[in-house]
Amino acid sequence: MIASKESFEPHSSEQLPNSKRVYLKGKQHSEIRVPMREIQLNDTKKLDGSIEQNEPVRVYDCSGPWGDPDFRGDVKEGLPALRAGWIKARQDVEEYDGREVKPEDNGYLSRVHADSAKGSRRNQLIEFPGLRRKPLRASKGHPVTQLWYARQGIVTPEMEYIAIRENQGLEAMREKMSAQQSRRSLMHEHPGIEAQKDAPQVFSQFPQNMPKVITPEFVRDEVAKGRAIIPSNINHPELEPMIIGRNFLVKINANIGNSAVASSIDEEVEKMRWSTKWGADTVMDLSTGRNIHATREWIIRNSPVPIGTVPIYQALEKVNGKAEDLSWEVYRDTLIEQAEQGVDYFTIHAGVLLRFIPLTANRMTGIVSRGGSILAKWCLAHHKENFLYTHWDEICEIMAAYDISFSIGDGLRPGSIADANDEPQFGELQVQGELTKRAWEHGVQVMNEGPGHVPMHMIQENMTKQLEWCGEAPFYTLGPLTTDVAPGYDHITSGIGAAMIGWYGCAMLCYVTPKEHLGLPNKADVKEGVITYKIAAHAADLAKGHPGAQYRDNALSKARFEFRWEDQFNLGLDPERAREFHDETLPQEGAKTAHFCSMCGPNFCSMKITEDVRKFAEEKGITEQEVIDEGMAAKSEEFRKAGAEVYTKA
Amino acid sequence: MIASKESFEPHSSEQLPNSKRVYLKGKQHSEIRVPMREIQLNDTKKLDGSIEQNEPVRVYDCSGPWGDPDFRGDVKEGLPALRAGWIKARQDVEEYDGREVKPEDNGYLSRVHADSAKGSRRNQLIEFPGLRRKPLRASKGHPVTQLWYARQGIVTPEMEYIAIRENQGLEAMREKMSAQQSRRSLMHEHPGIEAQKDAPQVFSQFPQNMPKVITPEFVRDEVAKGRAIIPSNINHPELEPMIIGRNFLVKINANIGNSAVASSIDEEVEKMRWSTKWGADTVMDLSTGRNIHATREWIIRNSPVPIGTVPIYQALEKVNGKAEDLSWEVYRDTLIEQAEQGVDYFTIHAGVLLRFIPLTANRMTGIVSRGGSILAKWCLAHHKENFLYTHWDEICEIMAAYDISFSIGDGLRPGSIADANDEPQFGELQVQGELTKRAWEHGVQVMNEGPGHVPMHMIQENMTKQLEWCGEAPFYTLGPLTTDVAPGYDHITSGIGAAMIGWYGCAMLCYVTPKEHLGLPNKADVKEGVITYKIAAHAADLAKGHPGAQYRDNALSKARFEFRWEDQFNLGLDPERAREFHDETLPQEGAKTAHFCSMCGPNFCSMKITEDVRKFAEEKGITEQEVIDEGMAAKSEEFRKAGAEVYTKA
Repeated sequence: MIASKESFEPHSSEQLPNSKRVYLKGKQHSEIRVPMREIQLNDTKKLDGSIEQNEPVRVYDCSGPWGDPDFRGDVKEGLPALRAGWIKARQDVEEYDGREVKPEDNGYLSRVHADSAKGSRRNQLIEFPGLRRKPLRASKGHPVTQLWYARQGIVTPEMEYIAIRENQGLEAMREKMSAQQSRRSLMHEHPGIEAQKDAPQVFSQFPQNMPKVITPEFVRDEVAKGRAIIPSNINHPELEPMIIGRNFLVKINANIGNSAVASSIDEEVEKMRWSTKWGADTVMDLSTGRNIHATREWIIRNSPVPIGTVPIYQALEKVNGKAEDLSWEVYRDTLIEQAEQGVDYFTIHAGVLLRFIPLTANRMTGIVSRGGSILAKWCLAHHKENFLYTHWDEICEIMAAYDISFSIGDGLRPGSIADANDEPQFGELQVQGELTKRAWEHGVQVMNEGPGHVPMHMIQENMTKQLEWCGEAPFYTLGPLTTDVAPGYDHITSGIGAAMIGWYGCAMLCYVTPKEHLGLPNKADVKEGVITYKIAAHAADLAKGHPGAQYRDNALSKARFEFRWEDQFNLGLDPERAREFHDETLPQEGAKTAHFCSMCGPNFCSMKITEDVRKFAEEKGITEQEVIDEGMAAKSEEFRKAGAEVYTKA
Repeated sequence: MIASKESFEPHSSEQLPNSKRVYLKGKQHSEIRVPMREIQLNDTKKLDGSIEQNEPVRVYDCSGPWGDPDFRGDVKEGLPALRAGWIKARQDVEEYDGREVKPEDNGYLSRVHADSAKGSRRNQLIEFPGLRRKPLRASKGHPVTQLWYARQGIVTPEMEYIAIRENQGLEAMREKMSAQQSRRSLMHEHPGIEAQKDAPQVFSQFPQNMPKVITPEFVRDEVAKGRAIIPSNINHPELEPMIIGRNFLVKINANIGNSAVASSIDEEVEKMRWSTKWGADTVMDLSTGRNIHATREWIIRNSPVPIGTVPIYQALEKVNGKAEDLSWEVYRDTLIEQAEQGVDYFTIHAGVLLRFIPLTANRMTGIVSRGGSILAKWCLAHHKENFLYTHWDEICEIMAAYDISFSIGDGLRPGSIADANDEPQFGELQVQGELTKRAWEHGVQVMNEGPGHVPMHMIQENMTKQLEWCGEAPFYTLGPLTTDVAPGYDHITSGIGAAMIGWYGCAMLCYVTPKEHLGLPNKADVKEGVITYKIAAHAADLAKGHPGAQYRDNALSKARFEFRWEDQFNLGLDPERAREFHDETLPQEGAKTAHFCSMCGPNFCSMKITEDVRKFAEEKGITEQEVIDEGMAAKSEEFRKAGAEVYTKA
């Protein structure tokens, strides 16, 4: 049933080239095995005929067991429950008989209605056939959140897992490298920190905070301070722990989900696997329409990454799309339903207050957040305060009992450049700050959602205010899009803003696909969106001076310079496209070992000429070592003198 | 012969949808007719049944006569000589018998060799069949450059043309708009200038300099100060004048050109037209291999935008690819050859000095600029100073006699993140500054080329140093690429850096296509690169607070909000892709007037809900006008009181 359709090829189960799966083991918790993808490289053939071995490069891998060629799982069974033992060992949760799944959870009026839909391919209700565990919840009267453990000084297995993962195995590689320190070392010291003096103010404190090696204790401390979250519902034991916080690698989220007019369960499960293959750190299931509950079950049981949802979408389906018929009871029931399934974070638009709504009437594009507009409609219809705001403490208690993280929504985010940074937007952000602090009192992990459409010069203000008003809780933004004029290219308009806000300190970037504003993304769009956001996140990691970030750039640039074409492809974010583009002009296998490419042809390659320059310089006795040893200044002085007669002419 | 091949479809001669060509007339010079593309919009159907007319939107148009459906030209004849009268009227140029075209100009050893190649499709020499004018050069002993005229206080027709063009006809539209000031005015005041306080230091002086309306006198003044250039060889009368400077719209350049292993003349001419159709402000012909002279003739005679070249590429061909055989004589001959053809700006790598070359040996990726590596090789082979540096004054004299602008090359730009902002790069930049000032003494227009590969946090330093060391001459950068890890996506890695440096004050952005580092771009790649860079340039214009920039964003966002799908497509940078993406999920014609889309389906659109919110608010007597009149603060206070009983709960 989940078998890939032709339109889906290539499938996520295909492995990336020249890569193998390796696992790094935990020290404090010896059962920990952190997956990494290890990319094998070819040797460098030096000009003098000697050979230089290139160490394989390990990269962060979000694909979970699906990315391990030895894994023999099946989407009908779901992934192994990696964290089940860790959760039970804490002895603070209990199994219980969960809420019964109702026909309206999947958008049907009754069981009969649901059964009658089984004939239709589009509407049929296909329940997840794998294991149904009884749900877990807190049993000892305290939160079972990573925040609570962190505050108690407990380093959980999740935290150690994350520390190893964030280091990307670089510690070990560093040791190897220092032994063979080559001239153009892969560990090339970056002038980054020095150059940070030019960086925006808000951000100047933050490379200092960042340790050279991420320790489990550092992870615990950041979580305890509320600066980072580990979204990890106790009912999602399949999850491979990851962290969202500005002193860690910048993360990205991919949105998937069916809608009333398009796509089906199998497509969505494959989109989840597909997006994690290319590097999505979390996935939001934004399904609307039919089969929401069933779709989500399939996705969670098969997902190695945290799953986020916007519960109000499903609640709205349960009241047949009429916002004014929403109630706390329907919403609460939906929270429990999703909590028991294992959703790791909830977007909740509790900051859309009644008093902000008329302020949006004067906007270019009103309210563009779906959640925001649903709640605005409800507030106006009842002329009452947003019921999510008034029930915040009860919501916090639910979150604490399952370790679901808040992603406090920005329902009044700007939908156009003209509306950026206006009064309703910042009014809501202040309320997000208030809600954050109240959630922390309940021991619940929190991040805050941010815009949207913001021109470049107004991006930093968002980050500054969020850090200040929300007590340094992680920020999670959609883009922002830096112009409105390019429908069809909004992955790019937003990738620019995403890279910048990531540098300024945003912890997670919600991807935007090329279909934004126009239609539902297909698999090609999902990949394009994910890769664009991996670029933005990585560019931000480099700019932040993350200790492990530049390793991959250096390895790729070294390969490029040495005409190791295969290595250049394989070290890239998308080896398939790189190879395909190269082969369009030079398809012959020999061209991939050639010391030239189609851009300049065989006699005209600047990289080849540089090799000649080096060789020439060596022959003339101007060795590089000499330059290094004598100091560059002295050497250039010598050159200046040598060329002195020429200078008089000028 | 230039007939489009199948692989070339769609062809650049197809017109963009719902658009017509309009011309704005000059005042000081009544013969001036500045082309704009005017996009017709549909009416807005308001909720109360009334109709609101939407004024058409005029946009800057680089496509020249080719973009005018009434133009009946042919690439075999070339474009009309728009500026011929203006040039002659200045009475400071003379016709002369130009240099004879030699076989080696096209890469042949002899006339016989050239003739024998005629049998081969790839190698045949196809000379431009249209008009051969005699070349012009200065005749009165003074430079015939726009800089020289500007310094004399002369406002040339070129300057007035540019003033009109930069205003994009907004002045007239503003007047119309103020008459019908709608609630969500297209001229929406942007909080941009206020928010500039957060902008980087370097740039804080510059919105103040920017007038609300660009006048011909402002253009003259900026050119006279050396802050802006108007590349416009007197032998390229077909050119429609444009300006490059940081107090104007940010411009983009597209590189085209055949290489030794791929592409042909007709492909390159079509690429030039194709790139200007999508918005390239200038085009660089980087051809190598055979038929360089003939290809360039075809391109210039058909180009409405300035054409730039790197003369050393052709000089190298003339010495059979041996850098050490280059000489001032061969190079000088090439300059004259290209000057007579009408090249508007030359990239000249005169800052690659002998003393910098050994400093590159320690780099991750050595010298990656083609020009830079050729000159480095020459310098080392002869152990002499770069002959372009030693002959700078003679070069300046040639440039002054034809009004060719310098684009002083950055031959030592970094080719990887690891090499960014290092000693050889900044050493060369200082020399670029020295050369700039010497060129100004000769009355020659100058811009400076910049990197390359630079992580985000090190970009601003490039701009700061360039402004300081090069006396505010316009900066023209390649990207910069903000990470090395994404071959196949370098339009995006570099689009991020391009947008940022554009904001910081870079005047022109050289595009990077998805094929960068991998192969020669085809037409699809050229379009992808151009659109990405139009996004970067426009995002920068918005962030700079350019008075005309936000008009188009606002018009598009209004169309989006009002479900005018056709208008949303047509106002975008790529109407074809926007429509295609929309139609993938909802191909029915009815869907393009529907108040929903495939993202959310008919019952779930946040924009629709916002309309309901507005309607609801109006019915309840919470009119928007009331909110505006009474002031937002007062109104929100009233709301707060109304909901006070709810707040006590919180």
